[in-house]
Amino acid sequence: MEYRFSNKVSGLKPSAIREIFKSLTDPSIIAFAAGNPAAESFPTEDIKKIADKIFSDSSLATEALQYSVTEGKTHFRDQVAARLKDKFSIGRENDETIITTGGQQGLDLACKVLCNEGDVVICENPSFIGALNAYRSYGTRLVGVDLEEDGISLEGLENVLKKEKNAKLLYIIPTFQNPTGKTTSLEKRKAVYRLCRKYGVVILEDNPYGELRFAGEDVPPIKSFDEEGIVIYSGSFSKILSAGMRIGFVCAPQEIVQKMVVCKQTNDVHSNIFFQMVCSQYIDNYDLDAHIAEVRKLYGRKCGLMIDAMEKYFDDSITFTRPEGGIFVWAAMPEGYDSAALAREALKRKVAIVPGSTFNPDSNKPSNGFRLNYSTPTDAQITEGIRILSEVMRDFMK
Amino acid sequence: MEYRFSNKVSGLKPSAIREIFKSLTDPSIIAFAAGNPAAESFPTEDIKKIADKIFSDSSLATEALQYSVTEGKTHFRDQVAARLKDKFSIGRENDETIITTGGQQGLDLACKVLCNEGDVVICENPSFIGALNAYRSYGTRLVGVDLEEDGISLEGLENVLKKEKNAKLLYIIPTFQNPTGKTTSLEKRKAVYRLCRKYGVVILEDNPYGELRFAGEDVPPIKSFDEEGIVIYSGSFSKILSAGMRIGFVCAPQEIVQKMVVCKQTNDVHSNIFFQMVCSQYIDNYDLDAHIAEVRKLYGRKCGLMIDAMEKYFDDSITFTRPEGGIFVWAAMPEGYDSAALAREALKRKVAIVPGSTFNPDSNKPSNGFRLNYSTPTDAQITEGIRILSEVMRDFMK
Repeated sequence: MEYRFSNKVSGLKPSAIREIFKSLTDPSIIAFAAGNPAAESFPTEDIKKIADKIFSDSSLATEALQYSVTEGKTHFRDQVAARLKDKFSIGRENDETIITTGGQQGLDLACKVLCNEGDVVICENPSFIGALNAYRSYGTRLVGVDLEEDGISLEGLENVLKKEKNAKLLYIIPTFQNPTGKTTSLEKRKAVYRLCRKYGVVILEDNPYGELRFAGEDVPPIKSFDEEGIVIYSGSFSKILSAGMRIGFVCAPQEIVQKMVVCKQTNDVHSNIFFQMVCSQYIDNYDLDAHIAEVRKLYGRKCGLMIDAMEKYFDDSITFTRPEGGIFVWAAMPEGYDSAALAREALKRKVAIVPGSTFNPDSNKPSNGFRLNYSTPTDAQITEGIRILSEVMRDFMK
Repeated sequence: MEYRFSNKVSGLKPSAIREIFKSLTDPSIIAFAAGNPAAESFPTEDIKKIADKIFSDSSLATEALQYSVTEGKTHFRDQVAARLKDKFSIGRENDETIITTGGQQGLDLACKVLCNEGDVVICENPSFIGALNAYRSYGTRLVGVDLEEDGISLEGLENVLKKEKNAKLLYIIPTFQNPTGKTTSLEKRKAVYRLCRKYGVVILEDNPYGELRFAGEDVPPIKSFDEEGIVIYSGSFSKILSAGMRIGFVCAPQEIVQKMVVCKQTNDVHSNIFFQMVCSQYIDNYDLDAHIAEVRKLYGRKCGLMIDAMEKYFDDSITFTRPEGGIFVWAAMPEGYDSAALAREALKRKVAIVPGSTFNPDSNKPSNGFRLNYSTPTDAQITEGIRILSEVMRDFMK
């Protein structure tokens, strides 16, 4: 049978860098291409105790194994909302917080409820491939705006807002951005908010790494000054407790949340309730902040190791960001070199990196930049991998 | 801000029967309106042991808490595929099996990859509300075909197939249908397959209750005679192990599965891996078939209780199905009575039922039928609830 796929998905292909991602399951590969939290960051012992408690109590066990409500467990939603309020001054009277199946589901549903096919989603260039592909899967048109040192180009953003009447969403990762590790300045956050308000475009603020600062000062999320209800905030427990449990959340104006809930119900009914209970009990009975402080320390050390190795081994012509948190460093060869070709060469030497073109919202043009992750590899792999990569680049740029 | 929602979702409203569903959290209500598996059907002790084993082994624990592959854990996919082959003769060379976040996600993704807005999805009338709302959320047009005693009307189906050139999908629940409990005959299954092949329409066969037969003889799924690759088969562990864990699966032609995987990746990255491991270990180390035999016995008894009570208390003018499996009975007052009004009256007496109009794909016209579930209420509630409902109906039909 000749299948007639929908227009929105018929152009979608498995990722061009699938081969690189496949290689990540090979333990002999140094996985700078991943985005996994460090396995040693999972509070396994505590989760084991909580699991044991839940399955030993017949009423808790039944709750964990039975259907549950789409919006998420009420007490857990309250905990997440209180935490957002407390840590980030997020949540106004008209806002509502729901639980999602990982942060990813929030990004997907936000696009589904706001965008028709052909509508424009504005994105930082470069930006997170998982989000870009979600928007593509709804037939939207992505328009990229260059990311500068202190965040998205305001001039570029206003030009797009002026020109694109069907712009519905600005997708932005202001803190420890994926793939660059950059953080948008407070001034720019305010300017972005003002611009989007002026042009009637909803901001989708993705903040999966926001709690992972290991240097410098916190910058308030855009959602924290959302008096007008134009910001959908998406967060996740993936990078602070466990990614495999698929627990994220959205805080957004009620009207938007209500549409998202209807779509979530028809998407997966509810997020798995056992891990909602695990997160909830962890917040109630353990010290989440102390745990996060440990994770920050771990990532600060690993990031330091990578930066040190880059300073030691990389040629002076290679530039790179110095993140104050998160899990990614962005490096770049001089203009004109193609990092996709570099990635293929590096893979031959068993080092996996992600070429910058992967993260380009609206063009396939080659990029001299590439993404490096330091949370997945071991300490020894970080130093050794950067050393090998420096050799590969030296040969490549000859 | 005035939000501009997408066309596909702007008409979506929280379910009109939300009040009935809300009432289900009130323990004083007799919940014939639910679709929950019986809490006593969960193998809690075994799941506790498996959870303990996973979290006690650092390599298993890391696997359970880390990101995983979108298609699902390889060994688990192989187990599911083998089981489908073994029990149902499902799976040809070109078919592939993937894990989904509950059966619901398979229904959602199938529609997303095949249907443009305005395309037609053909459904049994009445049919499962969760699927109908998923298709609505993609802006498709639903066309219902009447369900007869032995399955969908073939004449009705062919008329629709002839007329609707944009029909992309036939959504069908051939075994212990939701909401009617009816099972499509083998003859009709074959005829449905032939018709869809003739008109180039993909069949989405939803089979969440297929293993819950407690009387009569198994009827092969439509997918079991799918030599041409036109059937997407969706199944689930919700009704045989646990609903809260959100583990389902799809077996379909590779080309379709590949598109679904791309959309799943942007939807929730992967289904929670811990419960994939739980199901997988349950299949490997426990006796799933023996467990299902117990669940069947339980539901056979509960169904018998309900039917006995209906025979004892209901007026002769009330008709009802006698399911051979699954979790639902369909009852009907004589033509002309509106079961939505009956449901409101019943709720005043603390009995919750779902009016038939809820399940109508393409019309809001009142229905004299209603759905009763026997897996959720206790034995005592079943008998007492049916007695109360008979009184409510007697008053209502006066």
